Amino acid sequence: MATVAFIGLGNMGGPMAANLIKAGITVTVFDLNPQAVAALTDQGALSAKTACGAAASADYVITMLPAGKHVQSIYIGDDNNKGLLDVVGKDTLLIDCSTIDAQTAQIVGAKAAENGIEFMDAPVSGGTAGAAAGTLTFICGGSDVAYAKAQTVLTVMGANIFHAGQVGAGQIAKICNNMLLSVLMVGTSESLQLGIDNGLDPKVLSDIMKVSSGGNWTLEKYNPCPNVMDNVPSSKGYQGGFMVDLMVKDLGLSQQAALASNSSTPMGALARSLYVNHARQGHGRLDFSSIFEQFANQNKK
Amino acid sequence: MATVAFIGLGNMGGPMAANLIKAGITVTVFDLNPQAVAALTDQGALSAKTACGAAASADYVITMLPAGKHVQSIYIGDDNNKGLLDVVGKDTLLIDCSTIDAQTAQIVGAKAAENGIEFMDAPVSGGTAGAAAGTLTFICGGSDVAYAKAQTVLTVMGANIFHAGQVGAGQIAKICNNMLLSVLMVGTSESLQLGIDNGLDPKVLSDIMKVSSGGNWTLEKYNPCPNVMDNVPSSKGYQGGFMVDLMVKDLGLSQQAALASNSSTPMGALARSLYVNHARQGHGRLDFSSIFEQFANQNKK
Amino acid sequence: MATVAFIGLGNMGGPMAANLIKAGITVTVFDLNPQAVAALTDQGALSAKTACGAAASADYVITMLPAGKHVQSIYIGDDNNKGLLDVVGKDTLLIDCSTIDAQTAQIVGAKAAENGIEFMDAPVSGGTAGAAAGTLTFICGGSDVAYAKAQTVLTVMGANIFHAGQVGAGQIAKICNNMLLSVLMVGTSESLQLGIDNGLDPKVLSDIMKVSSGGNWTLEKYNPCPNVMDNVPSSKGYQGGFMVDLMVKDLGLSQQAALASNSSTPMGALARSLYVNHARQGHGRLDFSSIFEQFANQNKK
Amino acid sequence: MATVAFIGLGNMGGPMAANLIKAGITVTVFDLNPQAVAALTDQGALSAKTACGAAASADYVITMLPAGKHVQSIYIGDDNNKGLLDVVGKDTLLIDCSTIDAQTAQIVGAKAAENGIEFMDAPVSGGTAGAAAGTLTFICGGSDVAYAKAQTVLTVMGANIFHAGQVGAGQIAKICNNMLLSVLMVGTSESLQLGIDNGLDPKVLSDIMKVSSGGNWTLEKYNPCPNVMDNVPSSKGYQGGFMVDLMVKDLGLSQQAALASNSSTPMGALARSLYVNHARQGHGRLDFSSIFEQFANQNKK
Repeated sequence: MATVAFIGLGNMGGPMAANLIKAGITVTVFDLNPQAVAALTDQGALSAKTACGAAASADYVITMLPAGKHVQSIYIGDDNNKGLLDVVGKDTLLIDCSTIDAQTAQIVGAKAAENGIEFMDAPVSGGTAGAAAGTLTFICGGSDVAYAKAQTVLTVMGANIFHAGQVGAGQIAKICNNMLLSVLMVGTSESLQLGIDNGLDPKVLSDIMKVSSGGNWTLEKYNPCPNVMDNVPSSKGYQGGFMVDLMVKDLGLSQQAALASNSSTPMGALARSLYVNHARQGHGRLDFSSIFEQFANQNKK
Repeated sequence: MATVAFIGLGNMGGPMAANLIKAGITVTVFDLNPQAVAALTDQGALSAKTACGAAASADYVITMLPAGKHVQSIYIGDDNNKGLLDVVGKDTLLIDCSTIDAQTAQIVGAKAAENGIEFMDAPVSGGTAGAAAGTLTFICGGSDVAYAKAQTVLTVMGANIFHAGQVGAGQIAKICNNMLLSVLMVGTSESLQLGIDNGLDPKVLSDIMKVSSGGNWTLEKYNPCPNVMDNVPSSKGYQGGFMVDLMVKDLGLSQQAALASNSSTPMGALARSLYVNHARQGHGRLDFSSIFEQFANQNKK
Repeated sequence: MATVAFIGLGNMGGPMAANLIKAGITVTVFDLNPQAVAALTDQGALSAKTACGAAASADYVITMLPAGKHVQSIYIGDDNNKGLLDVVGKDTLLIDCSTIDAQTAQIVGAKAAENGIEFMDAPVSGGTAGAAAGTLTFICGGSDVAYAKAQTVLTVMGANIFHAGQVGAGQIAKICNNMLLSVLMVGTSESLQLGIDNGLDPKVLSDIMKVSSGGNWTLEKYNPCPNVMDNVPSSKGYQGGFMVDLMVKDLGLSQQAALASNSSTPMGALARSLYVNHARQGHGRLDFSSIFEQFANQNKK
Repeated sequence: MATVAFIGLGNMGGPMAANLIKAGITVTVFDLNPQAVAALTDQGALSAKTACGAAASADYVITMLPAGKHVQSIYIGDDNNKGLLDVVGKDTLLIDCSTIDAQTAQIVGAKAAENGIEFMDAPVSGGTAGAAAGTLTFICGGSDVAYAKAQTVLTVMGANIFHAGQVGAGQIAKICNNMLLSVLMVGTSESLQLGIDNGLDPKVLSDIMKVSSGGNWTLEKYNPCPNVMDNVPSSKGYQGGFMVDLMVKDLGLSQQAALASNSSTPMGALARSLYVNHARQGHGRLDFSSIFEQFANQNKK
């Protein structure tokens, strides 16, 4: 049976590690927050005093961290601390599930390759609900060998697993998708409001566009206009779901990639500006479908 | 059996009228172009010397004209000419299938109502292929009575028939949809190119986004990146399909509606600017998915 | 001495007419609002019961009205009422100072020309302060003859008088200018905020950009960042000045022109979207430099 | 008399160093390109085999390099090479005139401060013509002491010298200015074209807007419409001036800063997208006012 070191036990990492434990896998966890560690050891995890200690003898190392700098520091280390790359065996598969910039993923991947170790970026989507239910989507960047070997653990935590390309490709594919999602959300919001302003019922308009050439994921699953769909954030005061602040983060990563490759993304850049304005007006912790409110006429309320 | 007067026998109107004839309906046609008339009389249509002549005793009048001014002029008339509203009976149902501004539709509808005549706007989508195959989508604006009565003829020409609301609502719903479509097309194009610029295979990226939260009609049916899908304009030199010039027209109508209702549509307005630039660079007769070329790196070719 | 009929005595028209009176010109006024009329007759104006009555024997007719439909109706009349064009003499010069769409100006101008009467559009800028002080800017569209003859009255009310071209050109030039102004205001606001967010003093940054290639009218006269300049709306809670709602109106006119000429104005269209959002959030009566607040970080307050 | 080490002798650095020599200052130069070095030694410069060799005993070190990575590497060094900070004396003033990201400037500045050495960022504007004429603009970031001491050399090379704030502030102020410049250029271009499309003479419209609230640097000095002004790139086939590729670089730096500070710059981001598209269509080496061509109607040519 595979052994896994799981590093980073936050809102996403915690339930992901728990699912591995439930599947009978031996999981050694590490997090700076002792309460997060205790929650997992209560469920049967082993714990280690350091990330390197957790990783030393594992078949798989899985990391789930907030940003690129954390990922780089934990894998490569610094002047004072060893990195995971210094301690793991050649047969260990390293899987970083954080959503970070592709460049950092490639730096870590190149360093791993120098040491003869397989590294894969595998950012997720599906949110905390998907993490708990084991229905996450993983978008992977790495070799065919790494991708094949990763199935053992990823299938326990997720329902959809894609292979986007070499190391870094998982991150790129994820931010391309999320940039497009932001464009769908803004475009759908302004289209619905244009209809409303001209006397249309948003439910009727949504039904028409959903099965026409305007059809898109937000109309299917996540209508931003209040009371068109049940059980979506827009019908619950824009609570829950995927926060504006997180969309701002992902749009920042997409713009960082666009700068690096000298690409033009006018819609994605505009969506970022609108989301930043929205966050700066105090709505950062609302669901990202609340961008609809930027178009609604507050004067009429 | 119903009798229909069909006025406007262009690329769309011609095959629509032909389908009515094939269904055994008595169709009297009118067009300023004698060749267009001859093509229909060859298929069994009657013809009239004037629009009013065609319409006088018909159960249904169907118009398919280029722009709002033509619609207003033919229905209401002017100093020198009678309009259709002056000659048709109270039981005639007037159906305008042109894509025009909602305001003109409402002006004509109000004038018809004054005369006690039912008028409905029913703009179509589906292109010339859909017109020929009888699989058009109709988006209707009018009373419940008009909508019910229209089924007799619309079901012969179309596969999907929606009721968007009162007179003018068909036009609004159509332009909301087409504005959203333009946003999907531009957003998908720039997302795919961002992926390509960062080393991803556009087929792989399309497959991932199609089933993720970036999923939308263009990824399903009309991928703008050459050679990702077969039998779409992008894989045939952007020939055929829905012309850039027509998208510019529809985006103009959406912006006209946004001005009238004081609505904000930043994505739709940006899409219009990009499409106008594209048309002005000489690409007006290419398919609208050719906007992808605005993002591709021509220097690398 | 010239005689003037002045029609439309609102916030702008009132003080403009008063300046003509002060210059010794015989002014006959008309407005639907009796209080506005009384304010002028108190200053020495004659009054008439109808616009046509005021205009019948005047050398100059000056109109200052809210929108194109009022201008068209008062000059051309309708089924029930005569228009000014029906009553004025061939030697009368008609000057419309309203800010309206160029198309309406051209329709009225063409109708006037049919009757052998000179018509000129001469929209103003300079606000109520400029109207009171007689320092308005007039941007004129009309023949050389009309332009020359208009000097007699325009120089009394204004300090800068431009000849933009034929009838309608005054409106076009004004909306081109005001569209550009909105772009300067938004661009300057976001540039200053970007500096502030990165630790710069907005006064220092403004001083540098003002004399560099970023220099523009807003940095010279109308800095949008509070407390950089004295005596501008941004330093007085964005009170006074040129209202957001009026900028939205002018940006609507510029987009209407762009639709009519099939032009692409991505920055102007984006500025309109941002200003509409701002107005819809309840800020329509603030000065238009308050768009700065869309970029400031409200969370930090 | 002051001694200067000048490192980086490209199109800008070469003539800047030459002006120092002409002023009687002892200048020791370094560049990887021997021809660039020879051109300066012919004019009286000393040369050194390494950057550190040139800098070791200088009162001032001036660097003019392409990008942040070069600046960081030459000042801080790496595993194999010493950096300038390792060899210069405590009294040496380090002045980096490159246009780079503020973050790198701050990293180098902090490292210099650790070593007790003054560092200042002083990016320039004015182009190669300004470099040759000694009329550059310097926008400085550094301490008051550094700023005062720098006058000795900066006044020889430039005509306008600004103090934007602490280390990094020079870079921020420059990119804020250049981002705003790009917005002025695009906004002016689309406004002029809107006027042209509606029948206005661009010279007349430019004259009106220049002295109205649309007034800005591009109308004063650098009109983008061909044949409105003499001796500007737009009247010379968009040759010379400031290349599109360099504007793309500066807009990239502004967006990098906006990402770092979580700022929203919708106009600047849109300008970047339009400039990237323009460059990708093969116009990267034209003057940046050629963005006007994106709005002109190529079909009418």
